[in-house]
Amino acid sequence: MQKLNVIKIGGNVIDDEMALQKFLSDISQINSPFVLIHGGGKLATKLAEKLGISQEIINGRRITNAETLKIATMVYAGYVNKNIVAGLQKLKLNAIGLSGADANIIKSKKRKNNPIDYGYVGDLDIQNIEVDFLKNILSQSITPVICAITHDGQGQLLNTNADTIANFIAIALSKFYDIELVYCMEKVGVLKDPNDDNSLIYELEKISYEHFKSLGIISDGMIPKLDNCFDALNQGVKEVSIIHAKNILPFINQLSNEGTRIRQSL
Amino acid sequence: MQKLNVIKIGGNVIDDEMALQKFLSDISQINSPFVLIHGGGKLATKLAEKLGISQEIINGRRITNAETLKIATMVYAGYVNKNIVAGLQKLKLNAIGLSGADANIIKSKKRKNNPIDYGYVGDLDIQNIEVDFLKNILSQSITPVICAITHDGQGQLLNTNADTIANFIAIALSKFYDIELVYCMEKVGVLKDPNDDNSLIYELEKISYEHFKSLGIISDGMIPKLDNCFDALNQGVKEVSIIHAKNILPFINQLSNEGTRIRQSL
Repeated sequence: MQKLNVIKIGGNVIDDEMALQKFLSDISQINSPFVLIHGGGKLATKLAEKLGISQEIINGRRITNAETLKIATMVYAGYVNKNIVAGLQKLKLNAIGLSGADANIIKSKKRKNNPIDYGYVGDLDIQNIEVDFLKNILSQSITPVICAITHDGQGQLLNTNADTIANFIAIALSKFYDIELVYCMEKVGVLKDPNDDNSLIYELEKISYEHFKSLGIISDGMIPKLDNCFDALNQGVKEVSIIHAKNILPFINQLSNEGTRIRQSL
Repeated sequence: MQKLNVIKIGGNVIDDEMALQKFLSDISQINSPFVLIHGGGKLATKLAEKLGISQEIINGRRITNAETLKIATMVYAGYVNKNIVAGLQKLKLNAIGLSGADANIIKSKKRKNNPIDYGYVGDLDIQNIEVDFLKNILSQSITPVICAITHDGQGQLLNTNADTIANFIAIALSKFYDIELVYCMEKVGVLKDPNDDNSLIYELEKISYEHFKSLGIISDGMIPKLDNCFDALNQGVKEVSIIHAKNILPFINQLSNEGTRIRQSL
């Protein structure tokens, strides 16, 4: 099968114009096709502040009320998505920006409001990823750039976690491509000591993950991220890695191993 | 050739949630494929006001400074575009939202800053409309929904007149389809007396257009709109009409003639 990278970028790239330009230049030089998935970084929070819309956070997660959803849609699907696409076009890489509503590629379900009402947040189901359209786009050598907005099929847009979208897209496409899923973070990978880049774990397999978790070395936000990674491997994704965005080109072209490769077993 | 409608909607539909739902329901019942083109109505102006960004208007045209472009991108390509697409998906019409940057469908050129600097405004050239992608999308029975944001191929997004986009898209596609270009306005069509819907001109050909212009019966904003219409007919578009959005379904299905059909000659 053909190789396909599914790459997720976070706020550290999106919020920094210079870092974003460098990143786009790097990925435009990748030798194999890819799908890019992004959120909106801190831009949505900044815009909400300017508009005087208060942001409610529960358990580290933002509550998406109607006004917050409107802002997320404007920032993710509008400003960030179209600037990334225009930036890739400049680099002669033909790209297309997509939300989950476009060509119905990602239908989600509004999260139940019990025990916490997260508001207009969508949860995914692998059945509701429309791979045919993405395959068609890729066959035309066009790069899909997918933002973290999905829809419920009933006219409602829903804010959706970009890591989770990357995971589901990778799994859904793994029947047709050899998928390498790459999460770009602010750190060089999974670290034993979050303050020391030299403590990078180059390869992380399930047993050592459980061990590090039990010792509290891997904790908090890394746990759902890594659970996602192992889940992707379980469901057909060939390679999963966590790297710093600045290392994307040598890492993907296998000229550097600066990052964490996730393995079922070594 | 296959019939294809190119439909442009304006602020009176976009700004009114009820009118938009009714319009989407109507167009989802059109028997032939179509392309929808939209601007952002008054939402962009409202958002700029809330953010305290002053809007400069010269000769009835908004000056698009960097902040205004950002707002236009968020509102047109984000909020309005994705809500229209989600609304069509609800009606079981598969749609895809596109800016000019997406799949490079519309490349424009920043307007010269002499005599007036309009800012980040794009002018179009028929050579730079990418019809192959649109044809491919249409062949998959997916409806393109195009917003009034284009790009210059050098990474710059540009605010672009939605009427002009509709015109260029219609002309570019007229080599492959029998195009019916329909402009939806706030009035039932071209009126002899702008305050009297009963003064509707059902058919307007070039000679009577010039006559009405010379008498001042057709004036102001209608002149560039009608010049566009005659230009489209000159360049291969089969039918051009100006109607009220509320009349779209019976008009397109030829059950009503409530609107103005533009003709080269009767």
